[in-house]
Amino acid sequence: MWDSIIECVPNISEGRRREVVEDVAAAVAGPGRQVIDLSLDPDHNRSVITIVGEPDGLAEGVLSLVRRAVERIDLREHHGEHPRMGAVDVIPFIPVRGATMDDCVRLSRTVGKRIAEEIDLPVYLYERSATNAARRNLATIRKGEFEGFATKIALPEWEPDFGPKEIHPSAGVVAVGAREFLIAYNINLATSDLTVAKEIASAVRSSSGGLRYVKALGFPLAEKGIVQVSMNLTNFKKTPILRVFDLVKREAERRGVLVAGSEIVGTLPRQALYDVASAALQIKGFSSQLVLEERIESALR
Amino acid sequence: MWDSIIECVPNISEGRRREVVEDVAAAVAGPGRQVIDLSLDPDHNRSVITIVGEPDGLAEGVLSLVRRAVERIDLREHHGEHPRMGAVDVIPFIPVRGATMDDCVRLSRTVGKRIAEEIDLPVYLYERSATNAARRNLATIRKGEFEGFATKIALPEWEPDFGPKEIHPSAGVVAVGAREFLIAYNINLATSDLTVAKEIASAVRSSSGGLRYVKALGFPLAEKGIVQVSMNLTNFKKTPILRVFDLVKREAERRGVLVAGSEIVGTLPRQALYDVASAALQIKGFSSQLVLEERIESALR
Repeated sequence: MWDSIIECVPNISEGRRREVVEDVAAAVAGPGRQVIDLSLDPDHNRSVITIVGEPDGLAEGVLSLVRRAVERIDLREHHGEHPRMGAVDVIPFIPVRGATMDDCVRLSRTVGKRIAEEIDLPVYLYERSATNAARRNLATIRKGEFEGFATKIALPEWEPDFGPKEIHPSAGVVAVGAREFLIAYNINLATSDLTVAKEIASAVRSSSGGLRYVKALGFPLAEKGIVQVSMNLTNFKKTPILRVFDLVKREAERRGVLVAGSEIVGTLPRQALYDVASAALQIKGFSSQLVLEERIESALR
Repeated sequence: MWDSIIECVPNISEGRRREVVEDVAAAVAGPGRQVIDLSLDPDHNRSVITIVGEPDGLAEGVLSLVRRAVERIDLREHHGEHPRMGAVDVIPFIPVRGATMDDCVRLSRTVGKRIAEEIDLPVYLYERSATNAARRNLATIRKGEFEGFATKIALPEWEPDFGPKEIHPSAGVVAVGAREFLIAYNINLATSDLTVAKEIASAVRSSSGGLRYVKALGFPLAEKGIVQVSMNLTNFKKTPILRVFDLVKREAERRGVLVAGSEIVGTLPRQALYDVASAALQIKGFSSQLVLEERIESALR
């Protein structure tokens, strides 16, 4: 196992031709990185490729992926529901283990610079890597999409952080940055009353007065006859999962409703589960060295 | 990392001469096993050596340890508070990961047989490896200790499972077996009233009507001015930590007392923390494949 692990989840603008997505993912192969998941979305005509690796290996793998995607994807022929501005639309780097957010910011800048120099794509740094506040939010950068970027890129305030001051004719532009791990977390409520889910979603999400790193919506789960609070937790270190769960549970109880269960969509970092366990048990000064397997891994290193 | 991990924690009858303990532990060295902890207890004149490894490597390492311990420790000169019957007193094998209890039972029998054949020690199989109910409990086997075993071993019902029908003159006999991981878990209560800790210990421990796999005692923590329920959880799969915590918390609240915090002494298996987290969050059908690092480890294997 590597000493330091960073995750990278490039979003590419192809979600229908599986052979193209697999070809782009195959370009990643090499030492110090590994593709662990491919997720195609035909409606959005977009795919998410999940790669993990050490900083150096990961950089090489991502460069190869971008090169292959630019060869295989032509945005002039791309249609889908999801907004997009590039053949490779966005490349987020996420610290997983033995790597800090600063490490990921540094890596995103190195990779962004090389994408500009070696592949001749305009690069915007976003989120934690942004060079100014207006570029922190990906949606703000992406506004106008591929079709609008030919003119947007000429505006002084939208000069790319790296690379040419005009879009790549077929591959557009790309956003590269560092962000925290995003946990997709849903809580099911033992009621069929959608109003309850919507009220609770509104109570817990940041935008309407709730917890800082929570996005939430209320949905019906028709096949089960119950409702769900569907959430994105964008910083589990500052807004821990158990706190979110407890708040949803309290808000539900206040409405005479119990929590039926909860689910993680995709994956979550091990530390997030350690945090839940140590908070639930009120363990003070929890250290991962309490975990037998972590002790073994340290001893074998 | 190994595909399957078993832990072995031989208890040897030497806890004062550090050089002897270190020499015995050093004999373990070799491929497929690793000593991860040495814990000397001078009062008990006894040490616990924590080894992890794959079945084959672990077997070789434990055999070497027993051979060295028999050379270096003479029970005729041994005194200490803890009851003991052998230079190597007991050798428990514990499934950690990718290995079942049955694997550990098989391994304990293989190792026991080889100890008898290669080192000429009488071997008793205990706990999950026991060949009859009377040998399940280590304390029952050990009764009479080293000094009494010269006659005890001659009784038909105490014929060893493997090896000679008389004790080794200096090293006595040894118990070998498989058991579940034991978690040493303490809960601190926000009161100085020792009665509360003792009552709760009595309520939660199996012997007085509590949970099946809990041993518990109430202690004062003089330096902090509070009290503690100190527990051994002998099967966290059947009596999960969070259930123990919740019961102690309820019993404390019923006495007007809050839980101040809790602590793990030593280590616990990662699965035990996953169990706490998934129970606390009411995650149905939790799988370790939800954990990013587990997914990475599977992909790299």
